[in-house]
Amino acid sequence: MIILKIGGSILTNKDSAESEIDSKSLKRIASEIKSSLDRSDKQLIIVHGAGSFGHPPAKEYKIGEPFQKDEYPQKRIGFCKTQNAVKKLNMLICEAFIEEGLPVVAIPASSFMTATNKRITDGNLNSFKKYLDKGFIPVIYGDVVLDNQLEICVISGDQLIQYLAVNLNPDRVILGTDVDGVYSKNPKTHDDAIFFDRFSSLEDLDTLEGTTNVDVTGGMVGKIKELLYLAELGIEAKIINAEVNDNIFKVLEDEKVKGTVISRGN
Amino acid sequence: MIILKIGGSILTNKDSAESEIDSKSLKRIASEIKSSLDRSDKQLIIVHGAGSFGHPPAKEYKIGEPFQKDEYPQKRIGFCKTQNAVKKLNMLICEAFIEEGLPVVAIPASSFMTATNKRITDGNLNSFKKYLDKGFIPVIYGDVVLDNQLEICVISGDQLIQYLAVNLNPDRVILGTDVDGVYSKNPKTHDDAIFFDRFSSLEDLDTLEGTTNVDVTGGMVGKIKELLYLAELGIEAKIINAEVNDNIFKVLEDEKVKGTVISRGN
Repeated sequence: MIILKIGGSILTNKDSAESEIDSKSLKRIASEIKSSLDRSDKQLIIVHGAGSFGHPPAKEYKIGEPFQKDEYPQKRIGFCKTQNAVKKLNMLICEAFIEEGLPVVAIPASSFMTATNKRITDGNLNSFKKYLDKGFIPVIYGDVVLDNQLEICVISGDQLIQYLAVNLNPDRVILGTDVDGVYSKNPKTHDDAIFFDRFSSLEDLDTLEGTTNVDVTGGMVGKIKELLYLAELGIEAKIINAEVNDNIFKVLEDEKVKGTVISRGN
Repeated sequence: MIILKIGGSILTNKDSAESEIDSKSLKRIASEIKSSLDRSDKQLIIVHGAGSFGHPPAKEYKIGEPFQKDEYPQKRIGFCKTQNAVKKLNMLICEAFIEEGLPVVAIPASSFMTATNKRITDGNLNSFKKYLDKGFIPVIYGDVVLDNQLEICVISGDQLIQYLAVNLNPDRVILGTDVDGVYSKNPKTHDDAIFFDRFSSLEDLDTLEGTTNVDVTGGMVGKIKELLYLAELGIEAKIINAEVNDNIFKVLEDEKVKGTVISRGN
């Protein structure tokens, strides 16, 4: 079984003022997945980010930050708005994927998972197993969930990958992002950025954090932390650029694609 | 706790060729619910039908009918299309409800329930309890689910009411429909239709089935069967007309509203 994450930044237009889907990108990725499944059957789980749909309400209502009891009614509304916004994104993604012939079925985190201090601590994955067994492609996405300590919080697509992988033991984990993988600096602004083929330890991460700005990497450090935890369990992950034509198809076919492998050191 | 069903026919425009929400009706109902919650705190679960969104794909792909193994790929796509269509309806309903200040959170049946021969046989309701405890309004709706016998099937909002009520023991069950309650014949076409204030047994149902056409009642017989089962367990339900101004508000406030009560006989 393969867990494939598709970053929210690839599926939505970040530059648009309104929440807007990137239909062209979406259609291309869907058709690459379909081509790979047509070549040979594969069990697949798709995880997608919240992109420009989920972030604005989550930020506006400061979901995940501690709050006073009298703020609860407003926080609840923020939670609901965020849930509904990412549901809308998921609906548009599923629409495009079904159009290409992919049997995608959404299983939102908010309907069965709970967290403790922003980490998923409860979430029965039987539905995923059942849908996989029946030939469906379960889809889960960055969402809001109840939190035992903070009342409510946001769960990122990256944390979902980790939780799914730990509990479902996939053969491979693939992260489609808008960069080629992990660089020492932002390659778009630094000519001397060094590319990492492989990442194996927290020491590697220290090097990275010492030489680059966390924000500039667009959450890359967060991704790596989630994936290093998987690496320790023997589950290898690969970060690739899903904006490059055919990369998703090739990586699903296990063909050579530029990217950064996060794996256990020897 | 109150379980409130809102019929799909009230929320969508049946006459429209496209799947279309009835925004005016939706806004009115949302504001009636809000007014009641403002007057006094109530725990509420909302169930809505699939309306003109879910029925067309479910019908086109004959979801719930037995099929040959080689038809499975097409059936899967039909399942996914139906799931996505009702998700879209739910997203539009939640949008309108949140706009009125209702903290609605969707918990789709397809993400955690399974059926056996079209009846729900598995579905842990812990998420409902947790969201209710935190002051949210859980929302569930007519959806598709995996079926142990038929592979896939459709679950109606009416069956969901029954499952929720049996397992969560609500104080009251309310069904908002587009008629005043149960008549012996279709009151829109028959002047001699008799109105039933109360329904208590399968014998009453026999009378009804003997004197009217099941189709004409718009699925009313199906609703009554689900509710009579609840009545046997001591859970009373009331069918009212949600198209009449203030009926939803009044029934939530336990004020007098025309309708049919389904309860246990003495």
